[in-house]
Amino acid sequence: MNEHLLPVSLDKAYRLLNHGPTVLVSARHAGVSNVMAAAWACALDFSPPKVSVVLDKSCITRTLIEKSGAFVLQIPTVNQLRLTHAVGNRSLADDEQKLAHCGVTLFDAAEGLGPLVEGCSAWLYCRLIPEPHNQQTYDLFIGEVTSAWADARAFRDGHWQFEHADPRWRSLHYVAGGHFYAIGAALDVETSD
Amino acid sequence: MNEHLLPVSLDKAYRLLNHGPTVLVSARHAGVSNVMAAAWACALDFSPPKVSVVLDKSCITRTLIEKSGAFVLQIPTVNQLRLTHAVGNRSLADDEQKLAHCGVTLFDAAEGLGPLVEGCSAWLYCRLIPEPHNQQTYDLFIGEVTSAWADARAFRDGHWQFEHADPRWRSLHYVAGGHFYAIGAALDVETSD
Repeated sequence: MNEHLLPVSLDKAYRLLNHGPTVLVSARHAGVSNVMAAAWACALDFSPPKVSVVLDKSCITRTLIEKSGAFVLQIPTVNQLRLTHAVGNRSLADDEQKLAHCGVTLFDAAEGLGPLVEGCSAWLYCRLIPEPHNQQTYDLFIGEVTSAWADARAFRDGHWQFEHADPRWRSLHYVAGGHFYAIGAALDVETSD
Repeated sequence: MNEHLLPVSLDKAYRLLNHGPTVLVSARHAGVSNVMAAAWACALDFSPPKVSVVLDKSCITRTLIEKSGAFVLQIPTVNQLRLTHAVGNRSLADDEQKLAHCGVTLFDAAEGLGPLVEGCSAWLYCRLIPEPHNQQTYDLFIGEVTSAWADARAFRDGHWQFEHADPRWRSLHYVAGGHFYAIGAALDVETSD
């Protein structure tokens, strides 16, 4: 277990996604685990925290979510750039050793709370809220966040630490064709105005 | 009209949102226009391009969208940091001159295609796809992008130019409490691997 892993209170969980990072989506059913990358994930509510994520019908991870009723969204880092691109471009259907070949190590945060991808900056464990019309028509899945954690080196006390941490902890923001941006400089607006 | 405004082909429109920027949402009905900020906007499909955006029931912009059946998502820049925060924290219900007080100037890209906020880096004009259950239960609105444009200084030939352009063109990524990040460094994965 990562000694830097800390729980994130559910009222702050939306902040893990609010700045629009590309995420890794993981799920497990009947002993099969998989991980994919998704740029189309978004916060959906504050309390209880909810999220949305778009999952193509060809994704095995989608099937695992439909069967297990749960999934994890986690925020990969600059340090995981190649891993993130690899899990997004390789299918478990073509490579049974996909996760090993992509450099993914999984762990559970607690009994049954997984699978989480090691090395990420934050994790949101979500219970699927079944919405068959959205899932079929738009490939859109909605989940309620029931637990969240972060690596204290990247996010602590309810705040991202990008401006203080090693740049390898920065989040990834995918565009297309292997082209990403890291999150950049902090900008603050005086909130008393 | 901005001489740098260029159309974006619809098959590339998802790239304007893919990296997770905070957006401005604008709409107009019966001569009333409004603009709000939204961090919870996301691409939803490639072709035809669709988007999702979460709009609280208290927002006047939401009512304008429900009545007009159309909205614009646009990508504000570092140069518009204060404008972005201001339109997200001031209501037209409290201040009839909200847009002027927030420094917003609106324009139409063509007859009836608006309102667009001047100074943004890109704009997606969307036709609302009515989904009453999503709108009522999740405050989630879905639109089909029917036209898109970008300022060629920030996005051209299907690619963001953040690494080449003046840093004031960078997108904003909101966290909470007046705290934003700008988009940062470009990172590329070899796509032949």
